[in-house]
Amino acid sequence: MSLPQSHRIAIVHKPGGPEAIEIVERPLALLRDDEVLIRTAACGVNRPDTFERMGFYPPPPDAPEGLGLECAGEIAAAGAAVDRFKPGDRVCALVTGGGYSDLVIAKAGSTLPLPDDIDLVAAAGLPETVFTVWANVFETGGLAAGEMLLVHGGAGGIGTTAIQMAKAAGARVIATAGSDKKCRLCRRLGADVAINYRTGDFADTVRAEGGADVILDMVGGDYVQKHIDIAKPGGRIVQIAFLQGSRVEVDLMRLMLKRLTLTGSTLRARPDDEKARLAAAIETTVWPWLETGQLQPEVQATFPLSDASAAHRLMDSGDHAGKILLIP
Amino acid sequence: MSLPQSHRIAIVHKPGGPEAIEIVERPLALLRDDEVLIRTAACGVNRPDTFERMGFYPPPPDAPEGLGLECAGEIAAAGAAVDRFKPGDRVCALVTGGGYSDLVIAKAGSTLPLPDDIDLVAAAGLPETVFTVWANVFETGGLAAGEMLLVHGGAGGIGTTAIQMAKAAGARVIATAGSDKKCRLCRRLGADVAINYRTGDFADTVRAEGGADVILDMVGGDYVQKHIDIAKPGGRIVQIAFLQGSRVEVDLMRLMLKRLTLTGSTLRARPDDEKARLAAAIETTVWPWLETGQLQPEVQATFPLSDASAAHRLMDSGDHAGKILLIP
Repeated sequence: MSLPQSHRIAIVHKPGGPEAIEIVERPLALLRDDEVLIRTAACGVNRPDTFERMGFYPPPPDAPEGLGLECAGEIAAAGAAVDRFKPGDRVCALVTGGGYSDLVIAKAGSTLPLPDDIDLVAAAGLPETVFTVWANVFETGGLAAGEMLLVHGGAGGIGTTAIQMAKAAGARVIATAGSDKKCRLCRRLGADVAINYRTGDFADTVRAEGGADVILDMVGGDYVQKHIDIAKPGGRIVQIAFLQGSRVEVDLMRLMLKRLTLTGSTLRARPDDEKARLAAAIETTVWPWLETGQLQPEVQATFPLSDASAAHRLMDSGDHAGKILLIP
Repeated sequence: MSLPQSHRIAIVHKPGGPEAIEIVERPLALLRDDEVLIRTAACGVNRPDTFERMGFYPPPPDAPEGLGLECAGEIAAAGAAVDRFKPGDRVCALVTGGGYSDLVIAKAGSTLPLPDDIDLVAAAGLPETVFTVWANVFETGGLAAGEMLLVHGGAGGIGTTAIQMAKAAGARVIATAGSDKKCRLCRRLGADVAINYRTGDFADTVRAEGGADVILDMVGGDYVQKHIDIAKPGGRIVQIAFLQGSRVEVDLMRLMLKRLTLTGSTLRARPDDEKARLAAAIETTVWPWLETGQLQPEVQATFPLSDASAAHRLMDSGDHAGKILLIP
């Protein structure tokens, strides 16, 4: 079998706006024993990609070159130590870089098989948000059936995934979003309550609902103190980003009196074996929700890989609802 | 059997300094079915008592009247639903109030039997610190064998208990204290490293030791950001008080990047059944350390109950090392 010698990747020579992205041809790296080569059907665009493009989020030192943290497609080749995947298998994968490409090298442990009836393009939007929601809302946050989740950006990639996964797990969900249209999407995906944060105070809504057990936050700033105020006793506040800044003034007395937990994590920096552990847990618990339709990738727009800049322009606008994908 | 009709308790008419404490005679409340009456050998003095005296720490609404959160002595009477204790049994107990007294009413679930060879007076200093360290360092903080605990005020009641319990559990301990003499006490109790925070920067020491997995903090203020800086990846920072203030400015980015947990709790406000659960766990895991001598109550001074003001004066001075006890 002859494998291609090169692939196209998206690089950023000089950090900046969406136009800073450049698609270049590069020799394909040698496949390591524990890796697979994926001929992609699509590649997911995520918020951290835009931070990386602007120079705010340097990739880990050992990451493959190029933007992009996830993809889906068919296995083109499998390393010598990879038992479970063979060429032609339909998969999606989480990667630490180089995800915007026609050919992506992924760790087998971060690669998941896809059910037959899942659209291969839409599936490219699954890994980053499913791993993130699983690790933060379920493992770190410990969301249990019957509990209340508050998630911000309910219409975004993380939000649409968090709403569906929390509902599938039997929890209740309050989602915030920046327009009434986005709120309707949140409700359609199962959110019990969706609130337009531009026209109302989400904190009042959460209080009226009795507080939140788990709060998934990518906003930071003055949201942090609000979250401490509206969390239920024993509540868990999980930070996955800080769009409004991470340097905050908080009164930790209420954190102590309510026995709250303030924590957070990033996915990309976790070691490979930790990602493999997450992948196994996700395959056991979350993948069945794909088969039942309780979790469906919510795609807003696709762009050709050659027009990755346009995809980033849409993400920067904040106007998207659901995932943005690139087609190689 | 005839029971006394009254007891002496320590009340505060007008919040203020140590002199605000008044010892008064009060009718004894009726013993409820799930309560025991303890004829005390001694009553422990704790930092929260001084806050309550100053008016900063109002007791829960259903707390018995008077200062004091712990005692040890012999059972004088047991409520109708109490199976495990009978008059004459040697016990110590955690209470929500009224602990500075010759006769203390305690929930049976918050009462623990004492081994025969434990001094009944010294045992009065156990409940508040053992419950606090167990709940915060072990349950919330999840301290495991081989991990590093950082504890401040290593020579105080919480500190002396935390050092011994952490060492008994196979962890390593860095303790801070305010004098070289106190540091020697910390080392004698088993601390691997003790640092005088007046003459050195504890953060440097912790960094040199490779960071801390669990940090037990009663200081707050600018310690919070320091703790975020010196915690190991995956570390847990547990707040049990804020001697330097709870309103802090912190950069939560590092919390997220290191996957830290910032949490805290208070003991007094927990419901009775939660305290009973803690008591059972303590009896299983911690009580054997009393029998082996790995945990020994560290007593600095005893005062007559009638001179509770002097006991508070000593605690306010910060000069104490180990527990301060009152003898009724």
